[in-house]
Formats: sequence, C-alpha cells, structure tokens
Amino acid sequence: MGAAFSLEQAQALDAVDPLRHFRQRFTFDDLELIYLDGNSLGRLPLASVDLARTLVAEQWGARLIRSWNESWFDLPERIGGKLAALLGAHADEVVVADSTSVNLFKLGVAALRHQHGRTRILTDDLNFPSDLYVLQGAIEMLGGGHRLEVIRSADGVHGPVDALLAQLDDDVALVVLSHTVFKSGYVYDMAAITAAAHAAGALILWDLSHSAGSVLVDLAGANADLAIGCTYKYINGGPGAPAFLYVRRDLQAALHNPISGWMGQHDPFAFGLEYVAEPGMRHFLTGTPPVLALALIEPGVDLLTEAGMAALRTKSVQQTGYFVALWEALLAPVGYTLKSPQQAAQRGSHLALGHVEGWRINQALIHDLNVLPDFRAPDNIRLGIAPLYTTFSDLYLAAGRLRRAVEAGIYTRYSRQRAVVT
Amino acid sequence: MGAAFSLEQAQALDAVDPLRHFRQRFTFDDLELIYLDGNSLGRLPLASVDLARTLVAEQWGARLIRSWNESWFDLPERIGGKLAALLGAHADEVVVADSTSVNLFKLGVAALRHQHGRTRILTDDLNFPSDLYVLQGAIEMLGGGHRLEVIRSADGVHGPVDALLAQLDDDVALVVLSHTVFKSGYVYDMAAITAAAHAAGALILWDLSHSAGSVLVDLAGANADLAIGCTYKYINGGPGAPAFLYVRRDLQAALHNPISGWMGQHDPFAFGLEYVAEPGMRHFLTGTPPVLALALIEPGVDLLTEAGMAALRTKSVQQTGYFVALWEALLAPVGYTLKSPQQAAQRGSHLALGHVEGWRINQALIHDLNVLPDFRAPDNIRLGIAPLYTTFSDLYLAAGRLRRAVEAGIYTRYSRQRAVVT
Repeated sequence: MGAAFSLEQAQALDAVDPLRHFRQRFTFDDLELIYLDGNSLGRLPLASVDLARTLVAEQWGARLIRSWNESWFDLPERIGGKLAALLGAHADEVVVADSTSVNLFKLGVAALRHQHGRTRILTDDLNFPSDLYVLQGAIEMLGGGHRLEVIRSADGVHGPVDALLAQLDDDVALVVLSHTVFKSGYVYDMAAITAAAHAAGALILWDLSHSAGSVLVDLAGANADLAIGCTYKYINGGPGAPAFLYVRRDLQAALHNPISGWMGQHDPFAFGLEYVAEPGMRHFLTGTPPVLALALIEPGVDLLTEAGMAALRTKSVQQTGYFVALWEALLAPVGYTLKSPQQAAQRGSHLALGHVEGWRINQALIHDLNVLPDFRAPDNIRLGIAPLYTTFSDLYLAAGRLRRAVEAGIYTRYSRQRAVVT
Repeated sequence: MGAAFSLEQAQALDAVDPLRHFRQRFTFDDLELIYLDGNSLGRLPLASVDLARTLVAEQWGARLIRSWNESWFDLPERIGGKLAALLGAHADEVVVADSTSVNLFKLGVAALRHQHGRTRILTDDLNFPSDLYVLQGAIEMLGGGHRLEVIRSADGVHGPVDALLAQLDDDVALVVLSHTVFKSGYVYDMAAITAAAHAAGALILWDLSHSAGSVLVDLAGANADLAIGCTYKYINGGPGAPAFLYVRRDLQAALHNPISGWMGQHDPFAFGLEYVAEPGMRHFLTGTPPVLALALIEPGVDLLTEAGMAALRTKSVQQTGYFVALWEALLAPVGYTLKSPQQAAQRGSHLALGHVEGWRINQALIHDLNVLPDFRAPDNIRLGIAPLYTTFSDLYLAAGRLRRAVEAGIYTRYSRQRAVVT
C-alpha cells in the first residue's frame, strides 16, 4: 500500500468519528466481511430483530386482528412523518406505501393529468431505468400523445444539467430525475433544477432512492413538487421494504391518485360504493400495506434521526473523499477509473469504479476477498458507504483487496459471463 | 342451551375431524379466545415464526444482498405456483405481488384496453367496495367513456345472477365480481357466469380474496380470464401480505401491465432504457416486492396444500352447517337473523348474523366474552370459520356467548357509536 495510507491511520480516523458508536446498533454476522452494498440493501438494525419478533409473535400471533387498531392502521403516516423530517419536508407531506415504481406511476399519472395540454416529459439517461419503464407504460396507457425525452449525459457520470435546462419550455409537463444517480452517485442541485422547471411551468418529480438517508435533501427549501424513493438502501428498512411518496401540501388536493383504493377512502368502514378521497396525503395510499415489511422501516428511520442527517453527510463526504484519495494512490495505477464526480458537493454516498475486468474483479471480491460491493453493467463496481456503519478501516481494507484482486490476478479464475442477478 | 346441542357433542365432532391435528400447527397465545376472524386476518402458523427468524437474522442480517440470488428473486413465481394449485390454475398462471387493489388496477386496465370499443363494466353491490373504487379511478383516468354498472342484490345476501346475466351484451368489456361475497359469504357459480360472460364477448375478473383457501376454486375448469385476491385471510400469510394475480395462459401475451417496472423487464440487469416485457406472468410484476411479507405467505400455502382443498371444503361445509343449526336453535330466538345463504353450495366459509344491536353485541363479544368476530356496517357480525384451526367446540361456545350477550344484556354497556376501525 502507499506510504501515505495505513490501517493505523484508518483506525485513528475511526477512533475520532463522532458517529462510531452507531455501528454497534447493527448486527454483524461475519466480522471479516466488508459490506459496501448498503446502497442496495442496508444492514439489519439490532432493533429490527426485536421488532420483528414483536410483530410476528405478539402483534400478529397474539393480538391478531386487534393489532390493526392498536398498532398498524396509522403506520403509513406515522413512519412517513418521521421520514419527512429526514427529507426537509413537513410531516403531513410524506407517506409510506407500495413500491417505488407504483408510487412513480401514481404521482406521474396524477401530474400529467394535472398538466393537461403539455406533452413533454424530460428525464436523463442516468435515471434508474425502471423509472423510464414506468413512464413509458404510463404514456402508452394514457394515449395522450406524451413524449418521454431522455437527455444524454456527456460522460455518463455528471447530470446533463445544461442540456436539461435548455429543453425546458411551455410544453414540458413534468421533469423526472434521480436526485442521486444510481451508477455514478452524481447529485443534482435540487433547488436550481426545481426553480428552472417551475419557471417553465413544469412540475418536477425527484426519485430519492439513493438520496434518502445519505445526502442532505431539503424538499421544502427547494419547493419540490413530488418525490418518491425506496427505504431498503440507506434507510435500512429491509429487503424490498415499502417505498415513500411526497406531495407538497398545496398540490395534495389538486392531484388525483389514479389507483384509488381502500386506504385512501374517506371513511372506509362505512363501506360506501363511491370513492371519496380522504384529504391530505392519505388519498395517495391504495390497498392494505404489507404490515411486517412496513413496520420494520421504523428502526432504520429512528437511527438516522438520532444520528442526524448533517452529521451523517459530514462523515459521508469525509469517507468518499478518503476513498477517492485511496483510489488515486492505490487503484488508479492498476487500471481502475473513478466514475463518480471528483467534487464532493456533486457526490452522494456511493462511488463507482470502472475497470475493463470489472465483472471478474467483482466476482473475486465476493468469493475470494470477502468484500461485498455491487456491480452495474457494463463495468461499474459500486461501493456504497453507509456512514451509520461503514468505517474508515473498511474503506482502507477494501482498497487493498481491490488492488490485490488485480495485482495477484485473482479475478482471472472467473469467466466473463454475467450472471442474471448481481 | 338447546337440548340437541352440547359441548360434549361438539367435542365428539372435533375428535373425529380428520383435519384436527392442523390446529397444532398454529400459535395460540390465549387458549380461551375464540377467534372467528380468520376471514380478515388468518392465524399465525408455527412455521412462520421460524421462517421470520430465518428471514431477518440469516437472510437479511447475515447473507445481506446475496439473498436476492440465494432466496428471494423467484419468490413471486414460486409461491404463485403453489397458490395456483389451490385455485385450479396452472403453476405459470399465478404470481404474488403488490396489493389486491393494485393488481385489480393492473388487470382491469389491461382488460379494458384489450376490449377496445366496449364501454360497459358490470359488477354488483355485494362486491368489496374498494374494488369499485379502483374501477372508478381507472375509468376516470382512462377517459374512454367506460361506465361502471353496479347491479343490486335483491336481498343483500345472494348475488343478483339473473339481473347480471340479463345485462350482458356486446358492449360489456369486463365483468368484475367477488367470487365469495365479503358480507354474506354468498359464492357465485364461477363456471356458469364465466361462460355467460364469454358468450357475450366479455372478459371476467374474479376477486378471490374470500375464496382462496376456503372454497373450491377451479379457474382452469371455469376457463376464467383473470383473478386477483389477498393472502392474509384463509391463506394465513400475515397482515397485509402481498396479493396474487392470475392471468389465463393464452391471455398473458395479449394483455399489457400498465405499471411496467423493473421486475417485469426481460433483462433488468442489462439496465437498458427501453421496457421489454418478459413473456408469461412475469411482466405483470412491477417493483421490488416487500420480501419479508412476501416470503411469509409460503407456510400458510403449504399448510393448505398439505390438508387439501377438498378436505378443507368438506369440513367448512360441515362447520357452517353446524353453526346454521346452532343459530336456528339458539340465536334466532333472541333476535339474530342469518344474513348468509341457507344452501351450503352457495355459501363460503364465513357466516353473517344480523341483529339490531349488532354493533354493541360485537363490542361485548370482544371485550367481555373473549370472542373475536368482525363487524361490517350496518349490522353484520361476521363469523369466519377457518377449517385449518376452527373447532366445532369454538362454534358451540361462540353460539352460547352470542346468546348470552343478548340474554344477559351485556351489550347494553356499550354506546351505539361506531369506531373508525373495527
């Protein structure tokens, strides 16, 4: 390793990390494993282990149907309200429900109907592909002549801000962007883009899946219209945990959830035959939520709240900066490229490394070197840094193993074939 | 109690019940509680307690992201395939995903688009109200001039079969019915109604929420087009567990899921920017499923499979018949009316009793008499009989307590005000 870096130095950084004790609030099965995939599936909070037991044995097993009144009915709003505080939103602007895609569909269709007469939808090729799939399906279904325009990033790393702004006109109904980009970790300037969209009369919908719990988000400060996002990454809500959706207060009555259901009905237990939307955020709910998966989001939200987003962002910036320095000294010389922004302010909490042997290196990391990153085609090795539990030592050791995978030729034992799921 | 009935007699019926040992496969916290709300939330299987521990501690906590490959990716189809066998469908015709309402939206919109040119949608006022809400929202969103026509039941108990059949013509796009009606427990003749719908060129969508795991369903035998249903009632999948959807094989390629997402994409990990539907049932999936809630459906499905639907239906018919006899002898004399069909073949596995003091009696049952039924406005006390764990003794004791609530005036301590959730 480079002379400027050492495990002792990393340990010294860990020793003065003000958030270091949060690591003890998570479960660690394999103490040698370096887990850098918290950007795909966050670790298991200890509190979630206890809560899962309570949910299953007590709430379901013993209290049975009574738990709907005692514990479950207000979960979408109660957890949503806590999440709102992490996103710079008001408590009555966020609910938890369904999947990110279903929520995008609901809000996207509602926004397009609200923007009647405008036909263009702007997005970029850095957005998560399934957001594009949802919009493509909605456009086809609506049959209203909407066009999805995918602005291309010049380098695949940075958002095409100038090109996006140049496309805004009075025919743009909606702009849909991932606030933090899933591949490169580029972070859009939410306030600036939102203001530009508004100046053109467009609505904007932010996908916060890679932002929630990892970067500073100020929905109210940016006057953002709509947002969605998942809870299983930096929020540590568990695999496939239900997603959240945000609608700014003054838009809540103007937008109509196209999937109008039981949970959004004004008085569901009157069993009336006509849908009457409950005011506020509740009418953006649809069916009965998967209670066990929904309730298990709360411990992760509570941990982020306790740590505070400002402190988490400070540590994240320090850690991504530390890893960029490790990359420059140790990894660039063996062929790794940095596919994330160099400027900290433009960077979320994950970094992407490119390498011509990326896929095979990723296999070596997982199977031989006990590092779990993830891989995004064609050659991105993504390293998710979750400041609640990732240490500087993790990053130092990971850099060493990334270098060793190449230097020692460990990756050469793997074929070039890509598996279905990574 | 009436001379013809006794606890000894009920216990004798339990002693010869061939399914009696399945009760031991569920958790019982309060042995005195008579739980008759398995039609709203089924009991907790013992195997689910162990599985929940494995899911949280091992699959999420220890294996982390690796569990997607090892355990989770195929859950929607694997559990769907097992469910299919309980519903008379082929294994490749059922998947588990989202909520019942979201699935109704997906299949309803797909069917209406497929039936281009036809404008009428038929349903009845016995259908679960939120099915109507979803259809109302879809119609408004599509803006295609569709009309939802709600056929009225003459007595609120039996499906308005003749009126429905009389309405079928070549402008009917879709018929949507609850196979087993949520209030009265009336069961439609799936084969006959489906054949009539087909004769008029209409598609039919069956909501099986109160049928799955409780009555005999033969989707293939009836040549049914589409079906949806929940898994938290007689399937014992847990609170708000994800729902299922069925599309007959020959319709799978013809119908397009309007909420096209990540899980339905042909090769999601290629990260292409254009949606390409995966053939078969998979393109009816949308986003990442709530894994913990989804996986916990399987133990309940396995128990039903092991018991066999024919044996379960035989016991259910015997038990509902036994309770109808108890009602006649013990409950009718104190003012209870039977709001379910008298004919066993027309009856699902729950019974509805009416009483002018229904709401207050329900409160007395819950708070004073340790019976958990549920209540459906305005005056229905529903008693769900789950043949996997409901005993004849339960039913005998419940009848006694229902009688006592009135005879001893226990209900009079409760006000007439209805709570928000029951």
